[in-house]
Amino acid sequence: MCSEFNLIDRFFVQENVSRDDVDLGIGDDCALVTVPEGYQVAITTDTLAAGTHFLADADPVSVGHKALASNLSDLAAMGAKPTWVSLALTLPQSDEKWLEGFCKGFFDLAKQYQVELIGGDTTKGPLSITITVQGIIPKGAALTRSAAQIGDDIYVTGNLGDSAAGLEVILNSHKNVKGELEKELEKRHYYSTPQVELAQDIRHLCHAALDISDGVISDLGHILKQSNVSAVINVNNLPISSELVTYYRQDKEKCQKLALTSGEEYELCFTASKKNRKAIKQIATILNKKISIIGEIIDKPFNGLPDSVQLFDNNKLLDWKLLGYDHFRREQ
Amino acid sequence: MCSEFNLIDRFFVQENVSRDDVDLGIGDDCALVTVPEGYQVAITTDTLAAGTHFLADADPVSVGHKALASNLSDLAAMGAKPTWVSLALTLPQSDEKWLEGFCKGFFDLAKQYQVELIGGDTTKGPLSITITVQGIIPKGAALTRSAAQIGDDIYVTGNLGDSAAGLEVILNSHKNVKGELEKELEKRHYYSTPQVELAQDIRHLCHAALDISDGVISDLGHILKQSNVSAVINVNNLPISSELVTYYRQDKEKCQKLALTSGEEYELCFTASKKNRKAIKQIATILNKKISIIGEIIDKPFNGLPDSVQLFDNNKLLDWKLLGYDHFRREQ
Repeated sequence: MCSEFNLIDRFFVQENVSRDDVDLGIGDDCALVTVPEGYQVAITTDTLAAGTHFLADADPVSVGHKALASNLSDLAAMGAKPTWVSLALTLPQSDEKWLEGFCKGFFDLAKQYQVELIGGDTTKGPLSITITVQGIIPKGAALTRSAAQIGDDIYVTGNLGDSAAGLEVILNSHKNVKGELEKELEKRHYYSTPQVELAQDIRHLCHAALDISDGVISDLGHILKQSNVSAVINVNNLPISSELVTYYRQDKEKCQKLALTSGEEYELCFTASKKNRKAIKQIATILNKKISIIGEIIDKPFNGLPDSVQLFDNNKLLDWKLLGYDHFRREQ
Repeated sequence: MCSEFNLIDRFFVQENVSRDDVDLGIGDDCALVTVPEGYQVAITTDTLAAGTHFLADADPVSVGHKALASNLSDLAAMGAKPTWVSLALTLPQSDEKWLEGFCKGFFDLAKQYQVELIGGDTTKGPLSITITVQGIIPKGAALTRSAAQIGDDIYVTGNLGDSAAGLEVILNSHKNVKGELEKELEKRHYYSTPQVELAQDIRHLCHAALDISDGVISDLGHILKQSNVSAVINVNNLPISSELVTYYRQDKEKCQKLALTSGEEYELCFTASKKNRKAIKQIATILNKKISIIGEIIDKPFNGLPDSVQLFDNNKLLDWKLLGYDHFRREQ
């Protein structure tokens, strides 16, 4: 057992990235950073609580990755470049082995994106992680939720549904033996890749964007509401992995429903004018990133709600009832 | 019971401060802010966990105040002007009455300092609050822990010891009836005043500074270590309230020891050249703020540790053994 200050020194300072724009890092009352002229700062905060966002006995490496990845994904959704991160860690006890794993997951990702840990707080209490991450973006270049235009293509990155299936595997770990397929889905739940580079490279070609944390059907609703438009989605265009299809024994409808509602995917959903299709596809190909056009932004129906989504199986209208993820609503 | 998103709308958006430098506030993946040219950003994060930093049944108004005040105090310690705040709130259940109280304490203070809530996260889990607060400061003007000079006066603001006495009152609430004196000390524990204005007005006259969160004797140690100097303190110069003296029945030594170790005071400790005494005193008088010179920065003793403090009762060296506040060390 070592003291709070030694913990910070030992696990956090040694592994840290060093950025030129950090004028004063860990070790004072505040950090001090410099923002380049003509840039805005993008800021986001997310909490991961044991029992709600991960199991208390989850591999700490995966928890460290997921905690930072989910926050970087919010920066990606604006098209911002990640720069600085603050970490508030609440731990039931000072567990060096857990911290070592957590730091590995956290710093492997921080190094990849050159994000410097600039401060934080370690507290005794039930296991929980709150991260505030900051990024920079040229003034006026950010992708917001309110900028979707009628006629825009609706894109998503990667595959959808694997995160929810991975969570099912994790929650059933006590009763089922995990094969290679199950292990792969579990990994996809924890080890998402924030779409940071793609977002920076295509932001000038896009209108609205957000990241998929509550299920694309629910998250897209925020874009629709804030942009005062509606949408159609063709469920046949949802990107579904071969592993998901195998896991659910070729049940296509089950996979599509899961793709629509699976939260914590940390893929992007964005809209862009049809005239930019070719340019966006070229950039995605260069970066080796999968993107799919799943639908279109349409005018809101006469007297209709702006945030409604119509689901089609090619030309057939579907009447699926689906719900997104919302902590407190679960209790109702 | 209302959903997560309604909670945010209802309690946080309505009461919020609106700043011109917030380009995009609550409601997107990130907030976007603009930093004035020639300024640095100061950033700090702190967690308050129920059971560690406040009792789970504490008045939520006081919890909201304390959570923001402790973070603003870190900005004050750099001499920064508070601007933006992110709030991560973890709640066991969606308790509207608790939230209403919390928001009152939080926003009354946010309005006082014109700090805009720019984002956050509400999560289900054991009660805990993590706040990241940001401020701006002209480049190079920040007060750091490493800038103390030999011969500097050591100042503290306000009175010391009341917070610890207030905590004792709170922890003994179940067995003692609270009189006016006890109620006043309890209030002082929760309702600290971050020294934001004073710090901005005197920063050009000071060298090193920090805020008193772990007890002045422990916190001053950080200045000494980082500045590679030592210090002498005259315990007769410690600012002690008449209420503290009454509460401890005129036991002067008890009060002095408490003043040295009382954490969560959120007063400032700073050092400044003797030639600035008059100017600093004038500014404190104008702002109606109490300041006291409690000692002096000295060279580190030959072969001595740089962070050692010698305590004197006027000219008599004291051999008091005192420990500061450190969550994990408590368990040893």
